[in-house]
Amino acid sequence: MRGFSYLKKALHIRSSCSRLLVVSCISSGGLLVYAENVDNNEKIVERSRLDSKKRKKIVVLGTGWAGTSFLKDMDISSYDVEVVSPRNYFAFTPLLPSVTCGTVEARSVVEPVRNIIKKRNGEIQFWEAECLKIDPENNQVICRSTVENLVGENDFSLEYDHLVVAVGAQVNTFNTPGVVEHCHFLKEVEDAQKIRRTVIDCFEKAVLPGLSDEERRTNLHFVIVGGGPTGVEFAAELHDFVHEDLVKLYPSVKDLVKITVIQSGDHILNTFDERISCFAETKFQRDGIEVLTGCRVVSVSEHSVNMKVKSTGEYVVVPHGMVVWSTGVGTRPFVRNFMEEIGQEDISTIFEAADTDRSGTLTIEEFQDVLEDIIIRYPQVELYLKSNHLLQVTELFKDSEGNEREEVDIEGFKLALSHVDSQMKSLPATAQVAAQQGSYLAGCFNRWEQCNTNPEGPRLFGSAGRHAFRPFTYRHLGQFAPLGGSKAAAELPGDWVSMGRSTQWLWYSVYAR
Amino acid sequence: MRGFSYLKKALHIRSSCSRLLVVSCISSGGLLVYAENVDNNEKIVERSRLDSKKRKKIVVLGTGWAGTSFLKDMDISSYDVEVVSPRNYFAFTPLLPSVTCGTVEARSVVEPVRNIIKKRNGEIQFWEAECLKIDPENNQVICRSTVENLVGENDFSLEYDHLVVAVGAQVNTFNTPGVVEHCHFLKEVEDAQKIRRTVIDCFEKAVLPGLSDEERRTNLHFVIVGGGPTGVEFAAELHDFVHEDLVKLYPSVKDLVKITVIQSGDHILNTFDERISCFAETKFQRDGIEVLTGCRVVSVSEHSVNMKVKSTGEYVVVPHGMVVWSTGVGTRPFVRNFMEEIGQEDISTIFEAADTDRSGTLTIEEFQDVLEDIIIRYPQVELYLKSNHLLQVTELFKDSEGNEREEVDIEGFKLALSHVDSQMKSLPATAQVAAQQGSYLAGCFNRWEQCNTNPEGPRLFGSAGRHAFRPFTYRHLGQFAPLGGSKAAAELPGDWVSMGRSTQWLWYSVYAR
Repeated sequence: MRGFSYLKKALHIRSSCSRLLVVSCISSGGLLVYAENVDNNEKIVERSRLDSKKRKKIVVLGTGWAGTSFLKDMDISSYDVEVVSPRNYFAFTPLLPSVTCGTVEARSVVEPVRNIIKKRNGEIQFWEAECLKIDPENNQVICRSTVENLVGENDFSLEYDHLVVAVGAQVNTFNTPGVVEHCHFLKEVEDAQKIRRTVIDCFEKAVLPGLSDEERRTNLHFVIVGGGPTGVEFAAELHDFVHEDLVKLYPSVKDLVKITVIQSGDHILNTFDERISCFAETKFQRDGIEVLTGCRVVSVSEHSVNMKVKSTGEYVVVPHGMVVWSTGVGTRPFVRNFMEEIGQEDISTIFEAADTDRSGTLTIEEFQDVLEDIIIRYPQVELYLKSNHLLQVTELFKDSEGNEREEVDIEGFKLALSHVDSQMKSLPATAQVAAQQGSYLAGCFNRWEQCNTNPEGPRLFGSAGRHAFRPFTYRHLGQFAPLGGSKAAAELPGDWVSMGRSTQWLWYSVYAR
Repeated sequence: MRGFSYLKKALHIRSSCSRLLVVSCISSGGLLVYAENVDNNEKIVERSRLDSKKRKKIVVLGTGWAGTSFLKDMDISSYDVEVVSPRNYFAFTPLLPSVTCGTVEARSVVEPVRNIIKKRNGEIQFWEAECLKIDPENNQVICRSTVENLVGENDFSLEYDHLVVAVGAQVNTFNTPGVVEHCHFLKEVEDAQKIRRTVIDCFEKAVLPGLSDEERRTNLHFVIVGGGPTGVEFAAELHDFVHEDLVKLYPSVKDLVKITVIQSGDHILNTFDERISCFAETKFQRDGIEVLTGCRVVSVSEHSVNMKVKSTGEYVVVPHGMVVWSTGVGTRPFVRNFMEEIGQEDISTIFEAADTDRSGTLTIEEFQDVLEDIIIRYPQVELYLKSNHLLQVTELFKDSEGNEREEVDIEGFKLALSHVDSQMKSLPATAQVAAQQGSYLAGCFNRWEQCNTNPEGPRLFGSAGRHAFRPFTYRHLGQFAPLGGSKAAAELPGDWVSMGRSTQWLWYSVYAR
């Protein structure tokens, strides 16, 4: 669903004559949208006439990597900028796993947004609140303060001329029962601090008089659900923390500690080069970190994880002291709603543009033609085709039963694109991608006049002319190529704490496709 | 009540033939008790015979200043030491007000107990739990783990040969409605961190769109209840924090911030030398910190403080964004219960010892005689008499109507002593006092053999001979005398953050009597 709406959003660019521009980090669910008021909206036109003398107002949602780098690179001399975020600080997220084990102090991974703003001569305003809804009809966002038990209205709305949505993703529990109640996450600084306290609690409880060894074992069993980069990095951090520090402080229970990684796929780090995930598994085995692959967690309770072993179909109950849930992220509901709202007619627009003979169906040739332009803007589509060894687009024409088709109608077209979209793994959920997207977008605003006079983007579908801006590209794609899998792997696992390296890993995974 | 039981406890020393030794920091409610199993308890005698070969076991309750300094100075070569505390760290409490404003990081004011223990070669065991009950009959303490939602029994009991109670005090709300629900305190590190977050929240909420200036003012009104050293120091810290840092980050509301100190007495710092409290008030006035003296808080609600103006008797409602409650501390219930349990017959014992003519009443002479011995052990009694200009003890003989009496019976005697006790202000609630008490007690254990062979304490009442140990004395009493009130006052208020100085202040107040 997320993927689909993402691509719909992406396609929307064509139809909206550069009124709407999207750069999105889909695999993180992280999203950066720039939306300008659409001219054919009477109400808005009227408003803009009234405000014609006023500087345009940009509202930025989010203070993560994308939002913050946008603020830092934005030339605010010609815009009024307002920022809305429930966090009044920017968090250096790649270091969160290190915070959980005290390798790094929480305070040293955060930067107050108001300090960043101050450096911009106070021309940017910040509101600590979360966005509840985007109302593109009226060009406004509905926000709610996250501070309770103080006097005054909590809800307020902000009008925008340009809206930048950079709220990032949210934890994806896949609606697994008990996850929200009994699991820890690794998204926010508070999560990391809470994990740290909980690990210590587990040890303090485990050493108390009157517990059976079985109970001590349970309290000292740390389960990580999800064998992706974050989960694996945390497992490695925790292992070092336990065996370098905690066993010295709690010597009596040092042999009862256990760390387990539960992975639904056949390998941990399965988006990575095979050599890497293989090395990681070997290293973990050597470290005594148990890796349970092919197991899907069906529910989590206060003291146990209930999982299904795919191969045998049997259900296994795993007692635990703490569970960290790290199975990926999803798009925030209000963003999905927004994307659907503005993304509706786009696919049909591009379909019509492609259907040159107005037959109501696309031939392979017609499809190929538009696909090229899609690829210009969305290299991941090409990467997808490559990674799936689809030498020709005809593959996309197969119906659900896998039968070849000569032509596709609008539905088949949507299906094909959403298929590409849902499979898309080529945009890594890295801080770097988001940061680049932020400064890319800032650049678009900074070169607004110039680019609208001399468009530098690819040709338009809906009408004549070209897009004002060149599409976003990952400047560093493959930059870390020299880093061979084995070498990188040789840096497992303690070294993963440094942002540089973990990013390399992700980049490597992209490059390795 | 606390005071009374304290003195009963104190007097208990005489009767129990050095079986029980008390050093107490009464004005803090902080308490340090050393209790040995009493020989005439059959059960215990039996037990000790069984364990005769075993090293004696000392159980220490609490990891504050007293407990920690005890652990650091204790020679554990001849004892098994176990420590029980809900906090697995030692907190450098005098810096808490600085933590509230970020002048000092929380992590830099705490030291993990297990690190301290590690230095003692792991011969000390620590249990993270709180003591629910002391059972002197069976020489054991009932404890409960503070860690929830992990498997295994939470309650356990520890037997002791010697018990050291160093749990410190708890916040005293005087049962004022709403205080627990709506006020912040300054006892624990978590309190300080919570205050810091709340101050920021108040500013974030106050700058949001759509609030009236009145609402902004309310959210930015910081109320401190209690004009003692802690409350005053916090008010000063907060003022600096607001005017040096926050106004730069929240310029739009800088004129709406207000800090108010509510004090029931006629002056803030009223246990201090008059010149000091006078200076503090002037300085606060200059800083725009409002000081409301002679006002008693009758209730606190989410958004307002309800107080009674003593002079006029009228009730005033004060809207607030945050309230910090700092009106002093009280003894923890389980400690009070314990003191009463073991403190019962002591006063009658000393009364009998004093009533040489077995008349059932004490003459002034008889009273004077025992009082001298009380004073040897409890200098504060003398200080009390001095500070109240009671040149003779006859004053203590006055009945409730203030009529002189020739003799007192046991009840009048108790009343007189409890009166002294309740008035006692000469033991400041400082980290230094507690720390000294801790190492004093460690010294007693370290010199156990030697002192029991050659007692160095004052003569006994109940029987012949002397106490094994010299009583605890505040070695640093008056050490800070060179620090004149005006000079000290000249360091108001930002400077108060350093422990050294705040301690000086308290010591000065003692010395100034």
